[in-house]
Amino acid sequence: MAKTTAPTNKHSRLIETAAKLAHEQGFKQTTLADIARESGVPLGNVYYYFKTKEALGEAVIDKLASAGQMLRAMWDASPDPKSRLEAFIQMSIDNRDSLARSGCPIGTLCAELHKEGGPLAQDAAKLFAELLKWLEAQFRLIGRRGESRDLAVHLLSALEGASLLAHTFHSTRYVEREAERLKNWIRSL
Amino acid sequence: MAKTTAPTNKHSRLIETAAKLAHEQGFKQTTLADIARESGVPLGNVYYYFKTKEALGEAVIDKLASAGQMLRAMWDASPDPKSRLEAFIQMSIDNRDSLARSGCPIGTLCAELHKEGGPLAQDAAKLFAELLKWLEAQFRLIGRRGESRDLAVHLLSALEGASLLAHTFHSTRYVEREAERLKNWIRSL
Repeated sequence: MAKTTAPTNKHSRLIETAAKLAHEQGFKQTTLADIARESGVPLGNVYYYFKTKEALGEAVIDKLASAGQMLRAMWDASPDPKSRLEAFIQMSIDNRDSLARSGCPIGTLCAELHKEGGPLAQDAAKLFAELLKWLEAQFRLIGRRGESRDLAVHLLSALEGASLLAHTFHSTRYVEREAERLKNWIRSL
Repeated sequence: MAKTTAPTNKHSRLIETAAKLAHEQGFKQTTLADIARESGVPLGNVYYYFKTKEALGEAVIDKLASAGQMLRAMWDASPDPKSRLEAFIQMSIDNRDSLARSGCPIGTLCAELHKEGGPLAQDAAKLFAELLKWLEAQFRLIGRRGESRDLAVHLLSALEGASLLAHTFHSTRYVEREAERLKNWIRSL
């Protein structure tokens, strides 16, 4: 594996670890000490990169936002909007084990942060806002101009709810079955 | 208002307050001291009724389970399964302000508790299990025997996901529009 300079390496390792722990055990439950221990970065150094847990939370959200952008760019390579939407749905099937273990990284983060509110919660909401915008554009391209927003909300709701049930029952079945149903729905439009 | 004896009164006031605070700010974020302050029950008395926060969590889940049973009994009074399912969907519309403020009390509790797991998380999962069983029975009565489980999961997923979006964007619109779409879907079956 190519090594970057030590500081950059530590910086991204901290964000990576924070994202992983926030997903596995919740953001508030995760302390800077947990992140230091798990990443192997001394706690003193953690404070050098991130003055507060809030700042690290922002970096985690930025990381999720970049990952979302990259995925959408990849799906955009598909020739037609229906196959792009199917690729989006397929992501839940591909990630079913992680969803059954810890839920959706974005959904559970939003649910947690919006209990308290504040700037971090607002930032997390943008992750869903960007995704909804993209989904809406696909439904418009299919020719469902007048109801593209409602269709986007329906698709995202169904997948997020199925992730919640998969997480609650620690079973991939909920995501697998619901995703197949949604793919059939997209094909039928 | 009829008054019960002081201890029973305090006992139920504590559970009521714990449920309210867990919904508003999350279960783990809520301390026994928060519950004592908000309920007006001295902290020393709280320990008399609930030795641990886990025990209070169990009482909150029992309360949600009883509320669910009462609602299903009420919906069962409707003459046909489709109107029972519509009554279930209508509940989300009726509770839209609370959903936009704090999310679904069961959904957000499950999402939170299953990050850690353990007996309390398992207890919370039973809330959705009971609801899914009831939904499945309604779809069977409509004549969708072979796919009743998948239809139950689809309906609950869509509503839970819409609640998550309503909570994330603090807007009732997500629940209102999705609930109307789901009612139309039920009528079309």
